Amino acid sequence: MSGLIQTFEHGSLRELRLSRPPVNALDIGLCRALIAAMDAAVADDVDGVLLSGEGPLFSAGIDVPHLLAHGDDRAALTDGWLGFLGAVRALGHSRVPVAVALTGHVPAGGCVLALCCDYRVMTRSSEPSRPNTIGLNEVRVGLAVPEGIQRLLRRVVGPHTAERMLVTGAMVGEQEALRIGLVDELVDPGLAAAHALDWLQSLQSLPRQPFRQTRMLARADLEQALATEHLDLQRMIDAWYTPDTQAALHALVAKLGRKPA
Amino acid sequence: MSGLIQTFEHGSLRELRLSRPPVNALDIGLCRALIAAMDAAVADDVDGVLLSGEGPLFSAGIDVPHLLAHGDDRAALTDGWLGFLGAVRALGHSRVPVAVALTGHVPAGGCVLALCCDYRVMTRSSEPSRPNTIGLNEVRVGLAVPEGIQRLLRRVVGPHTAERMLVTGAMVGEQEALRIGLVDELVDPGLAAAHALDWLQSLQSLPRQPFRQTRMLARADLEQALATEHLDLQRMIDAWYTPDTQAALHALVAKLGRKPA
Amino acid sequence: MSGLIQTFEHGSLRELRLSRPPVNALDIGLCRALIAAMDAAVADDVDGVLLSGEGPLFSAGIDVPHLLAHGDDRAALTDGWLGFLGAVRALGHSRVPVAVALTGHVPAGGCVLALCCDYRVMTRSSEPSRPNTIGLNEVRVGLAVPEGIQRLLRRVVGPHTAERMLVTGAMVGEQEALRIGLVDELVDPGLAAAHALDWLQSLQSLPRQPFRQTRMLARADLEQALATEHLDLQRMIDAWYTPDTQAALHALVAKLGRKPA
Repeated sequence: MSGLIQTFEHGSLRELRLSRPPVNALDIGLCRALIAAMDAAVADDVDGVLLSGEGPLFSAGIDVPHLLAHGDDRAALTDGWLGFLGAVRALGHSRVPVAVALTGHVPAGGCVLALCCDYRVMTRSSEPSRPNTIGLNEVRVGLAVPEGIQRLLRRVVGPHTAERMLVTGAMVGEQEALRIGLVDELVDPGLAAAHALDWLQSLQSLPRQPFRQTRMLARADLEQALATEHLDLQRMIDAWYTPDTQAALHALVAKLGRKPA
Repeated sequence: MSGLIQTFEHGSLRELRLSRPPVNALDIGLCRALIAAMDAAVADDVDGVLLSGEGPLFSAGIDVPHLLAHGDDRAALTDGWLGFLGAVRALGHSRVPVAVALTGHVPAGGCVLALCCDYRVMTRSSEPSRPNTIGLNEVRVGLAVPEGIQRLLRRVVGPHTAERMLVTGAMVGEQEALRIGLVDELVDPGLAAAHALDWLQSLQSLPRQPFRQTRMLARADLEQALATEHLDLQRMIDAWYTPDTQAALHALVAKLGRKPA
Repeated sequence: MSGLIQTFEHGSLRELRLSRPPVNALDIGLCRALIAAMDAAVADDVDGVLLSGEGPLFSAGIDVPHLLAHGDDRAALTDGWLGFLGAVRALGHSRVPVAVALTGHVPAGGCVLALCCDYRVMTRSSEPSRPNTIGLNEVRVGLAVPEGIQRLLRRVVGPHTAERMLVTGAMVGEQEALRIGLVDELVDPGLAAAHALDWLQSLQSLPRQPFRQTRMLARADLEQALATEHLDLQRMIDAWYTPDTQAALHALVAKLGRKPA
């Protein structure tokens, strides 16, 4: 399972690189590997974590074909979602700061992971006519966005912009993402990891306890967003089996050129 | 009463046009007609509503001369305010999305209606030296802005900008309105309705239930703002009869060139 | 003690000028003088207060060498903090509007005072290569930022920008401060007080009671931020004596070229 996350040490900072080609889809294996890697990083008392990806998508989000293949097996579907929520919380509750290097597009669940990090650096697309994009496009693939995930976006871009993006399932381009604060930096291709590390290093000289207390308070709303009351798993499972959602998910899988088992 | 609202069908979208010349002042008749039209639109299961106006003002807000003419008749004054709050809630609680085409200035109660919609398109003024304006200028005419209405503005422009605008009763120009997010689009004269319809149409292809659930959660703070606890009618009525407010309202009516009965 | 605050009358507006050279450090004397001056201004029913400073710093914030000199005397340290919190609340709870003219840098406690005012005008630096700066840089000097102070910043710049600034202890330059709304106006050297007075004067024509009620509601979140539950003095005192904080504070004092008694 460890092959799904590559680990690199940068002094007392640690890079965790998602490595599940071709699009880092978040199946239960990748989610569990990320949880384990975050646990280990905190246990090893690193000063900070750099989360990175590879290829044209930072992460495509949850692995819809994988989940859809479970069919009526609610237990397996529940396990899949628990894995995803566990990965989200591992980042959101992290005692050490996490910066993320966003190389390529960041849709849906990939954006959820990014929103749980402390600092987001995105690379410009090498093709200006096809900018990188980021957003919570869940409604387009048939998934309602639960309150907890909406809060993650609201706290970053404000309730007004969040409402606009959520109800239309919008993916915004890299420049717009910078303007509205959805990414903190926009850098040339190849530089995202270095800039994210720079930011983490700038924190290392700060007095430790005051930094940690200030950070904990500044992110208390994020922890609150991830509380069970705002992420009702049972409701998400029930919604999964509604006709609108099933139709949209199957259409997505057909478009991806795969079929559920 | 139906003449106060003109209705036009655009496929499965419906346009409701305020038609009370010269300034669409919100008296009890127009408010009740708007409530009835919204109820009918939802009952007819339209996909969305376009709210529009005519002339130099989208709406001048509540009909102050009309309300002031009630004098000491608190029951009639209460009816007038109930009508306005009913219209506000008909938009804010709408189960279907509402886009609004803002042709001309949007002061006070007109701005309150606009803030309850999902999407705001404003037309540029045809005279660049006299831009269209929008804002909650209540304090300038002697009315305190209740918590519920302040929340409508805060959720769109943020608490800081809202505080600045509210305490000074500021009307902001069209460009500033776009910059702070108080309007979502700024378009050339004659195009507001078309752009608002475009936005509504972009929602029609989304899976229905996920869209509705996501939208409901994204607007839960708006519904909360309109709860009775934040819009205390008794307090609004009491405030109406205070000396500062009466003096300012009579000065407004004198300026409008009318006199209360 | 009155020499620490200079008072100037501008019609029915009153200017309170911090006058404790060289950097208006907020020791208990200056804090108490500010509290007394604010109480007097409200008692005299002025229409508004202009808070101003002198020299290269509006205020350097709390007087760390002074507080550190108290050593293990918790009672004296507590008195010092109570004075500062009293000054903060005198501004934040003021029944009359307060505008502030920010001439020079505005770090830490100076920024806290500024955030409690209604309107912030900053002067551009006369040296473009060395812009004026403003921010809550507490973590850099070893102090955790309590929830109440974090809220003051969040309500002005939003939770996302606030988190970024707080965890890094960032001081932002004058242009960035204007862009994110941390200051409301940026003016040429020598004009800050005049612009702040202009803003206060623009409020004088508004109907009094509607203005005051609207303002009170618009600032209710600020009053809530300053409630005891969000500014736990005992916790601040305990944190003062932790090793990380003591080391950082002594390093600061050494850098300032003074030593604690």
